[in-house]
Amino acid sequence: MKTMNNQPHVVIVGGGFGGLYAVKALKDAPVKVTLIDRRNFHLFQPLLYQVATGGLSPGQIAAPLRGVLSRHKNTTVLHAEVVDLDPGRQKVILRDGEVDYDILVIATGVSHHYFGNEGWTETAPGLKTVEDALEIRRRVLLAFEAAEREPDPEKRRAWLRFIVVGAGPTGVELAGALAELARNTLKDDFRNIDPAETEVLLLEGLERVLPPYPPDLSAKARESLEKLGVTVWIGAMVTDIQPETVTIRRNDREEQVQARTVLWAAGMKASALGQILAERAGAPLDKAGRVMVEPDLSTPGHPNIFVIGDLAHFAHQGDKPLPGVAPVAIQQGQYVADLIKRQLKGEKPEKFHYFNKGNLAVIGRNAGVADFGRVRFGGFIAWLTWVFVHLWYLVGFDNKLLVMFQWAWNYFTRNRGARLITGPEPLPLVEQKAEKEAAPEQSPDFVEVG
Amino acid sequence: MKTMNNQPHVVIVGGGFGGLYAVKALKDAPVKVTLIDRRNFHLFQPLLYQVATGGLSPGQIAAPLRGVLSRHKNTTVLHAEVVDLDPGRQKVILRDGEVDYDILVIATGVSHHYFGNEGWTETAPGLKTVEDALEIRRRVLLAFEAAEREPDPEKRRAWLRFIVVGAGPTGVELAGALAELARNTLKDDFRNIDPAETEVLLLEGLERVLPPYPPDLSAKARESLEKLGVTVWIGAMVTDIQPETVTIRRNDREEQVQARTVLWAAGMKASALGQILAERAGAPLDKAGRVMVEPDLSTPGHPNIFVIGDLAHFAHQGDKPLPGVAPVAIQQGQYVADLIKRQLKGEKPEKFHYFNKGNLAVIGRNAGVADFGRVRFGGFIAWLTWVFVHLWYLVGFDNKLLVMFQWAWNYFTRNRGARLITGPEPLPLVEQKAEKEAAPEQSPDFVEVG
Repeated sequence: MKTMNNQPHVVIVGGGFGGLYAVKALKDAPVKVTLIDRRNFHLFQPLLYQVATGGLSPGQIAAPLRGVLSRHKNTTVLHAEVVDLDPGRQKVILRDGEVDYDILVIATGVSHHYFGNEGWTETAPGLKTVEDALEIRRRVLLAFEAAEREPDPEKRRAWLRFIVVGAGPTGVELAGALAELARNTLKDDFRNIDPAETEVLLLEGLERVLPPYPPDLSAKARESLEKLGVTVWIGAMVTDIQPETVTIRRNDREEQVQARTVLWAAGMKASALGQILAERAGAPLDKAGRVMVEPDLSTPGHPNIFVIGDLAHFAHQGDKPLPGVAPVAIQQGQYVADLIKRQLKGEKPEKFHYFNKGNLAVIGRNAGVADFGRVRFGGFIAWLTWVFVHLWYLVGFDNKLLVMFQWAWNYFTRNRGARLITGPEPLPLVEQKAEKEAAPEQSPDFVEVG
Repeated sequence: MKTMNNQPHVVIVGGGFGGLYAVKALKDAPVKVTLIDRRNFHLFQPLLYQVATGGLSPGQIAAPLRGVLSRHKNTTVLHAEVVDLDPGRQKVILRDGEVDYDILVIATGVSHHYFGNEGWTETAPGLKTVEDALEIRRRVLLAFEAAEREPDPEKRRAWLRFIVVGAGPTGVELAGALAELARNTLKDDFRNIDPAETEVLLLEGLERVLPPYPPDLSAKARESLEKLGVTVWIGAMVTDIQPETVTIRRNDREEQVQARTVLWAAGMKASALGQILAERAGAPLDKAGRVMVEPDLSTPGHPNIFVIGDLAHFAHQGDKPLPGVAPVAIQQGQYVADLIKRQLKGEKPEKFHYFNKGNLAVIGRNAGVADFGRVRFGGFIAWLTWVFVHLWYLVGFDNKLLVMFQWAWNYFTRNRGARLITGPEPLPLVEQKAEKEAAPEQSPDFVEVG
């Protein structure tokens, strides 16, 4: 369906990095754009771990999509959820309506998954949404409160033990921030416990932390983590999670660790739209459910349906698929916008090519690792680079400057002022105490964590 | 019970303005202090309406109690809920334990109430907690989203009509901020609706807005509100609230107004500890359940139990009880701390006397009213004074400067970057639509986009 003025209608699903940059790059193109997202904001996900550890507030790392795009007069933001596609009739099916498209761009990303143990969602929350981050913040802070009031030393240790599963960038950053929270921010906050006794255990199934990075940077990252007090276990898999006990397989034997707080930073599952594209448009998927895209990011056989960002499996450059990181999504969004503009002019577009400007991860207050291909470095310079690169990409955040101030402030004062326990149950300790008292036999099988 | 070193144990319940200032003023006193709160943060309630309208994030108006008091070595923060008192044994009963006291200070404040219509809690949320503010933010933003997608003009108007019940400072500030949100912040955000068509209806049961203020300032406030586009109805009472219809009695007749969003800023109910003090210690209560305190803020017959802040009814100065505002609570907290110190030295304390430094309320972006007794003024100067006074009182917020930056930023850009729809149901529109679709007469079950 052409719109009134006969401009093609580009429908973009998902307002993450990929979708938002595609919309932005289409600002002055002769098309009508509709951006559909079930959330009303763009989330700067790389900083989500800062919300989870009380360093930043959600409002500081999220920007309302309507606000970001208010001056894009060719763009409509639709706050709705896509539940199906109909490529035959060129329609996107919403839970409460449908939208026609000429060109469709799917940018709905991935979420975490539990390798078949979806029951762990409750016991080991992941970190993908604002709600996830606030839930993790609540659990982490409540664990310290519970430890402060727990007279039994063994039980106290379980409250002060945090297990982070998965040592990709999110897991590494989260573990580093947790260690710092305990050792610096909370240093003088308690009277019965010493938060420095906190143990942060970072588990990685592969043979080193930050597996996608070069080995020397993985080693640097591990060193930085250990300096902060994080215990790193490599080749370690979680096989069971109970409210007070986590079972871990490592070196072919299982051991049980008493811990009350388990955070999930492993596993990746494609958005349901991947599966829908497979069913409705015959799109080929990889094992994780991501769409194997053509060199121009379109779905095989459907030159007007593009998949970009984390949901796209792009295997046409290098020997591995492109990683699921913000810079890839951004460049893909810009590429598809450019491709659409070229096609409208009758030009033949180039294939997509990712220009890797480098990889960055940050560990705690002033350590990081950076991999810019030939140039690699760790330590404070990497940390500083990370901060600037991230601030640079805080798109549409006209409070970029404020976030930078907040960061500088947190940095110099070791402060994390946003450590609020909020939510439906801000004080659930009592029930847990009552439960424990009810079960007298509870205490035996507990393993010391190095 | 004396503590180990024989210092008296002062237990303070509630970390609002009254409790927190009492703790702070006892910093160097020869006492042991325990502050009990069921929340882990002090909330700067006067700015809560800014969170409700997307101007600030919760982390910017709340400070973790442990952080604020980390250097108070004589103070323990206890994150727990008080459920009962035992004045005979000098014990505070927690949901999960008990605490002995020598001196008890109750500062648990008030919450809103619905004049016997407690069923309205769901349909007309109040504004007392961080969760309340986020819920209001969610509803307000979702109302604009629903209006944007609603084809029926009457129904759209109901989504764009906001009713604020109660024109005290909170109601006035909330109504002003809502009008500004619609007319300035959201101006260019939508494609199908003009947010300027939003109606904000402010209802007051008494004969003027800001009833506790002098009449000329009430008139100024009303003028400012109307300039912002707020419709003010005085002598108006809500008699019924249904999901889409509010019944209002005014001038002895009832009328029904179609509105989807009703916010409650009227009514005040004392904390349950008032009633408990009445039962356990024979404390006299006023109609609202507040404790009628002695001139030294103690409970009659219990010279070691003090009630301060909004929960105290202090009738020993002027012809009306002192108002439930932050400055009264702060001065009462400081007074009780001083009284305790004097008693320890064997001195006889003075009666409490409130020094009224003035009353302030702010209406929208740059209008306010100020009442400093002989000096009264409205307009921009009042607004500016309000901003500075509030920032001055942002106790323990070492991010005072950052909040000021955020304010200045919002002021100059008319921005409200924290307008995120979060919570358990960030996209509940669909169910509502689905309900409507279930009704067969609702013919076109899809909305054309663009």
